[in-house]
Amino acid sequence: MNIINEMESNVRSYCRTFTDTFNRAKGSQLFTEKGTEFIDFFSGAGALNYGHNNDFLKQKIIDYVSSDGIIHGLDMFTMAKGEFLQTFSEIILTPRNLNYKVQFCGPTGTNAVEAALKLARKEKNRNNVFAFMGAFHGMSLGSLAATSSISKRNGAGQPLQNVTFMPFPYGFFETFDSIEYIESVLIDDHSGIDKPAAIIVETTQAEGGVVVAPTEWLVRLRELCDRFDILLICDDIQVGCYRTGTFFSFERAAIVPDMVILSKSISGYGLPMSLLLMKPELDIWKPAEHNGTFRGNQLAFVGAKAALEFSKLINIEVELRNKENYIKDFLHMHIAPIDKNIKIRGIGLIWGIDLSKVCVPGLANKLINKCYDLGLIIETSGRNDSVVKILPPLTIEMDLLATGCSIIRKGLLSALID
Amino acid sequence: MNIINEMESNVRSYCRTFTDTFNRAKGSQLFTEKGTEFIDFFSGAGALNYGHNNDFLKQKIIDYVSSDGIIHGLDMFTMAKGEFLQTFSEIILTPRNLNYKVQFCGPTGTNAVEAALKLARKEKNRNNVFAFMGAFHGMSLGSLAATSSISKRNGAGQPLQNVTFMPFPYGFFETFDSIEYIESVLIDDHSGIDKPAAIIVETTQAEGGVVVAPTEWLVRLRELCDRFDILLICDDIQVGCYRTGTFFSFERAAIVPDMVILSKSISGYGLPMSLLLMKPELDIWKPAEHNGTFRGNQLAFVGAKAALEFSKLINIEVELRNKENYIKDFLHMHIAPIDKNIKIRGIGLIWGIDLSKVCVPGLANKLINKCYDLGLIIETSGRNDSVVKILPPLTIEMDLLATGCSIIRKGLLSALID
Amino acid sequence: MNIINEMESNVRSYCRTFTDTFNRAKGSQLFTEKGTEFIDFFSGAGALNYGHNNDFLKQKIIDYVSSDGIIHGLDMFTMAKGEFLQTFSEIILTPRNLNYKVQFCGPTGTNAVEAALKLARKEKNRNNVFAFMGAFHGMSLGSLAATSSISKRNGAGQPLQNVTFMPFPYGFFETFDSIEYIESVLIDDHSGIDKPAAIIVETTQAEGGVVVAPTEWLVRLRELCDRFDILLICDDIQVGCYRTGTFFSFERAAIVPDMVILSKSISGYGLPMSLLLMKPELDIWKPAEHNGTFRGNQLAFVGAKAALEFSKLINIEVELRNKENYIKDFLHMHIAPIDKNIKIRGIGLIWGIDLSKVCVPGLANKLINKCYDLGLIIETSGRNDSVVKILPPLTIEMDLLATGCSIIRKGLLSALID
Amino acid sequence: MNIINEMESNVRSYCRTFTDTFNRAKGSQLFTEKGTEFIDFFSGAGALNYGHNNDFLKQKIIDYVSSDGIIHGLDMFTMAKGEFLQTFSEIILTPRNLNYKVQFCGPTGTNAVEAALKLARKEKNRNNVFAFMGAFHGMSLGSLAATSSISKRNGAGQPLQNVTFMPFPYGFFETFDSIEYIESVLIDDHSGIDKPAAIIVETTQAEGGVVVAPTEWLVRLRELCDRFDILLICDDIQVGCYRTGTFFSFERAAIVPDMVILSKSISGYGLPMSLLLMKPELDIWKPAEHNGTFRGNQLAFVGAKAALEFSKLINIEVELRNKENYIKDFLHMHIAPIDKNIKIRGIGLIWGIDLSKVCVPGLANKLINKCYDLGLIIETSGRNDSVVKILPPLTIEMDLLATGCSIIRKGLLSALID
Repeated sequence: MNIINEMESNVRSYCRTFTDTFNRAKGSQLFTEKGTEFIDFFSGAGALNYGHNNDFLKQKIIDYVSSDGIIHGLDMFTMAKGEFLQTFSEIILTPRNLNYKVQFCGPTGTNAVEAALKLARKEKNRNNVFAFMGAFHGMSLGSLAATSSISKRNGAGQPLQNVTFMPFPYGFFETFDSIEYIESVLIDDHSGIDKPAAIIVETTQAEGGVVVAPTEWLVRLRELCDRFDILLICDDIQVGCYRTGTFFSFERAAIVPDMVILSKSISGYGLPMSLLLMKPELDIWKPAEHNGTFRGNQLAFVGAKAALEFSKLINIEVELRNKENYIKDFLHMHIAPIDKNIKIRGIGLIWGIDLSKVCVPGLANKLINKCYDLGLIIETSGRNDSVVKILPPLTIEMDLLATGCSIIRKGLLSALID
Repeated sequence: MNIINEMESNVRSYCRTFTDTFNRAKGSQLFTEKGTEFIDFFSGAGALNYGHNNDFLKQKIIDYVSSDGIIHGLDMFTMAKGEFLQTFSEIILTPRNLNYKVQFCGPTGTNAVEAALKLARKEKNRNNVFAFMGAFHGMSLGSLAATSSISKRNGAGQPLQNVTFMPFPYGFFETFDSIEYIESVLIDDHSGIDKPAAIIVETTQAEGGVVVAPTEWLVRLRELCDRFDILLICDDIQVGCYRTGTFFSFERAAIVPDMVILSKSISGYGLPMSLLLMKPELDIWKPAEHNGTFRGNQLAFVGAKAALEFSKLINIEVELRNKENYIKDFLHMHIAPIDKNIKIRGIGLIWGIDLSKVCVPGLANKLINKCYDLGLIIETSGRNDSVVKILPPLTIEMDLLATGCSIIRKGLLSALID
Repeated sequence: MNIINEMESNVRSYCRTFTDTFNRAKGSQLFTEKGTEFIDFFSGAGALNYGHNNDFLKQKIIDYVSSDGIIHGLDMFTMAKGEFLQTFSEIILTPRNLNYKVQFCGPTGTNAVEAALKLARKEKNRNNVFAFMGAFHGMSLGSLAATSSISKRNGAGQPLQNVTFMPFPYGFFETFDSIEYIESVLIDDHSGIDKPAAIIVETTQAEGGVVVAPTEWLVRLRELCDRFDILLICDDIQVGCYRTGTFFSFERAAIVPDMVILSKSISGYGLPMSLLLMKPELDIWKPAEHNGTFRGNQLAFVGAKAALEFSKLINIEVELRNKENYIKDFLHMHIAPIDKNIKIRGIGLIWGIDLSKVCVPGLANKLINKCYDLGLIIETSGRNDSVVKILPPLTIEMDLLATGCSIIRKGLLSALID
Repeated sequence: MNIINEMESNVRSYCRTFTDTFNRAKGSQLFTEKGTEFIDFFSGAGALNYGHNNDFLKQKIIDYVSSDGIIHGLDMFTMAKGEFLQTFSEIILTPRNLNYKVQFCGPTGTNAVEAALKLARKEKNRNNVFAFMGAFHGMSLGSLAATSSISKRNGAGQPLQNVTFMPFPYGFFETFDSIEYIESVLIDDHSGIDKPAAIIVETTQAEGGVVVAPTEWLVRLRELCDRFDILLICDDIQVGCYRTGTFFSFERAAIVPDMVILSKSISGYGLPMSLLLMKPELDIWKPAEHNGTFRGNQLAFVGAKAALEFSKLINIEVELRNKENYIKDFLHMHIAPIDKNIKIRGIGLIWGIDLSKVCVPGLANKLINKCYDLGLIIETSGRNDSVVKILPPLTIEMDLLATGCSIIRKGLLSALID
């Protein structure tokens, strides 16, 4: 599109890979203005777990707009917010025995991360925070300081402060016990590393290259935080909302973080929304101490409520298990054997094909271009963009899932020949 | 609402003043679940310049959702984005001889401020930025550093760095030439104040207490930036989108900022959206160097395009002038005479009644409570929350405007008696 | 000297102006290896208030070394330290009704400034500190952050944080009330400037260009600090030790700072030493929380004790007044009339000839080169090195003082002709 | 001493352990005012490698003072400086094929560290620096940021920035390859750790608990710095000047750091002095960009020259080897067998008895108190002050060395009984 190329900043990126103009989407498919179909293995970077324009949600959205429901509500009392909270409590928190207070942040993941870090520092009266190598938490100054990607960090134009990066069990850092590393740093009165207010963690690092933290590691991390009086913040922006098989990604470890951040798919319909959950005793905010014009995006609340109802209705966790097994089997049986240096990692419906050890420069990018030519939208992530990340809607039909997978295989074989 | 009081964080604020539960809104009115009407002199903190659920926009929104248009588009090429850019160029930029590139940021004002500050520091390779006393630019770490409110700053939990605050022509700082102050600091090789990459300014400080920068002062600020090779960033989040009488608030000074930030009312319908405009030569971003999941909020683009068309259709600038005159006259004739210490300030449809010198503790808060009881939603701003800020939708009907104004007068008289 | 030019870092500076090699000094004179004499109007940048190799001190130094007295004592109990403290108490503190505890810092001024800033931030639990435009407090990271010279600051290689610079009554900043400026900033809940732990001040800015703070201004500064619960730190490194006419420079204002920093001339003999004086209630240090290998420079203690005894012996304050009057008269009668744009500033035995408004580029540097050729060592300071700073030993003989002054006049006339 | 307890700040520390008042010292012995003798195994924290009041040096000092030599010289050309540089070049640099330029810093170790860090950041235009866990580099803000001790860091009163701590081969961190750890962090584009301008290292960490870096580790560190374009700074403040057996501590690894910091024993006589050595191509300082009043402490130069001559005269490196062997054997044969949990570490004449694993609370402190009672001055260092550090003058007589060692054994046995 000429007007976009002319007028939009050079910062634009996905349109450089996905070069068509899109105007319609449904379920797990996107359609260009010319009518070409694409299968979606990207899901809006995790914001469309329930598929595009899910009909169950769509009707509620249209009804709400039609009835002149409040669209912009700041943090006033509104019906839409009240109903969302009621449903969130009933379907999500209560059955899991979780007791969290809810903060509606500026409707971006990064804003909720900022709120969590502020609150942690305030509560513990400490400046430092631990984040993990491989982590992605956002692009505003506070969350960017906790984001590990050097190319993102370089954008800051100033030093990023008050975050210490710890080894995540990946690569060389798997050769030793990273929890013991952290513990040693905390015990050592000469480590030079200031005790943190909080440790912020993604239980599966998506942008880091689909790196799944071992369950036992998560249990030990929670235990370590308790022992040293450090808050544990779980960033579930990309891997929450059922992505890894349960609503919260940490359920597999049976731990309870002190704070949880949700965004991306929480609104269900792709509308901007983010939440910070905090244990009630941490809710030391003063009124308006953190605010934001769009923290009351009512249409998102309507979608969010519907999404929770929908996922209950279709028994989404059971659905997922079948698809998880399908992808896992496919990758291990049909992708891994192609080259012994390929590594497969994943959980639930987030999977990575790590091509970093396959000696073909830029292979992952070649692969996603091939896939696009074959009708599949899929992205890379991780170190040097060398991991192909499979992130279909959780609601994807089995045949589209199968087609998408076979495109990846075709694309990979083709990319290796070039 | 019990569920909200129970579950929502203590950070909630507006619901403490506006104690009813709202479920519907139209034009310049809000309706509670019980059907009570309120006139809106707050406009979602400036996000609803075209009123609630404006029918012209509403139809486009419903049509788009109904047609399964892309809702969540990241920065792919989409019809909705292309059409918005086309319209923005035709209706706004071209007629004003402005040549800006457009960055779609995470859909909050604060995110666009973060992007602007990053870009400025990167471009000039300097860490420091000048902001003004009284300024409000947002709540994430980078923008919060440029926000002057001590209570907001205290929320950070860490020192806020790399911003120097300069006097804005207000209060004691009006007793000398603040532009000459800045110039002296820049010329002095022993000022201790590091040369900034940029100066970020609101031409009218809204949160600072409705402080209108003199037009000549803005002209001199632009000239000073040119002379010292400093970028001028105009934060038009609250006072852009026609709020002060022209689309951009800086038009009255006939200056061209190097970057402009728009949010709040840019989507027209109260949906989250923000833009960073930059001179083409400043567009040194690398792809994805600043990104965000919801930077392609397509429904907001649809609303934004419609809002521009609508405002052209109704010749909004002419409309505004009448209302501006009405409010100005009312305030000077019916409010100012009540107490000689009342100060009136404003421009376009943003006006402030400064009660700080009237010796009644908490008078401004008393007044807005009185107004609420009388059916008017209105907020305080400024130093010690002592300025009542009048911010009706630009599309408000004259009779509602008049009713709202008379409620203020009634409320003030009543508050003074208590 | 070839070996020095070859081996010493480019950072060397004074040897670029004073191009001879020196090997002996006595009183107010320096001698080159070839025997050429120079009158000293520089006094080791203020470290030699009692002249070079003062015989009274010299004998004590030699006796101490000869007797194998402890030279390096860290912070053990030593006779030399005990005797210095006794004498300091008797001759300086008690007669002035001052009650300070004494910290022996690493033997540089900058180290004592670092200690003072640490202690202030610790005590008040605030990060920010106010310093003044024109200030010089040292070159290590903490003191450099409070130093105003842009060329010094640029050496840091990183942003300098947690200090806010306030206007000092000089130049444009004299056109308004700078105390009221500070007060306005502190009262304003939207100034954006975080409340400081301390305000650090030189009562006369030496490096800033010999700028003497008005006495009334100092009184008001002390009062303002009290009112806002801010510590007042007086940096008396260059202008303490009788330089301005009394032992402490702040005596003329009859104020008591919360902390006082002494260095330069405190040891009397030019040996490295520095002290931090603090009100007893501020002494919240834990043992060794701030330390340094050379904080117990015993030879300096021996010199320091002797210097206090010597200055009492000669009744130094009375001596000074005569010389002060001589210089003041000379400058006003024989220098100022040379050009109406010359400004004269000073107090005690620190005087500045401000040539910044005389339209001859580099005039001050030309002047000091002329003086050097004529046998006088003197330096520039201030904005753009445009102020010639007169800083003779306090013990200078009247005839040398007169000769030095007449050289300045000759040099200036000659520099203006070139 | 009453006057000291009354007047000196609570920050004083050594006088709490060594409770007598000292007034004389010679060689390896200190004498109290009452004439009691103490053997010195502390050497002024490493500032007295050539013993107290070494007669060879003493005579030069007295002669210089007697002749009215310049005492305070800033960075003018002086005979004393020229002669020191000549001798330093001839005796130290040239025989080792080293080509360094010399910067005379404020006469404290911390000041030279500050200069090194500034220069590295300036040269590489990067903010970050790597330091090691266990490191001690000083107490001013810049060097304190690179100091690992939590109790020292807490004194800052503000966050310490722009330094990342890396594992040093000690304790848990010995269980993996710390050089590979650093390399992994540097290679990983998602480590979150910004590339440093420099790595600052002590080849043997003294304050960290006498931790000797393996020679091969040092070789690999140098190689890693080369490969990644990072400067290597060797802090030889405590372990330079022959302490580990050679003049520079890094000679055993046959590496050449980009910068070297010397202080403590460089002046020979315990007088304040510090040097920064830098490769000539790094000397990008502008004149006076880093300065300091006492950077030209001429008496220290006189001592420093004499100390170099003296150490050559007595062939100090050969002398040392005998004493090193004596201590090593003694510790392994007479101390280690006392408890299987005792660890012995050391090199040259710096040795540590690590008592951290012996289950007696405060054992190390008990031991040094016992030693003091028996006439030996010795200090703890390291984690939880659990390592007794043996640091005698390099010139100590064999019988005093033997007596001191046997006191340690007696003291330890006695401390274990209590």
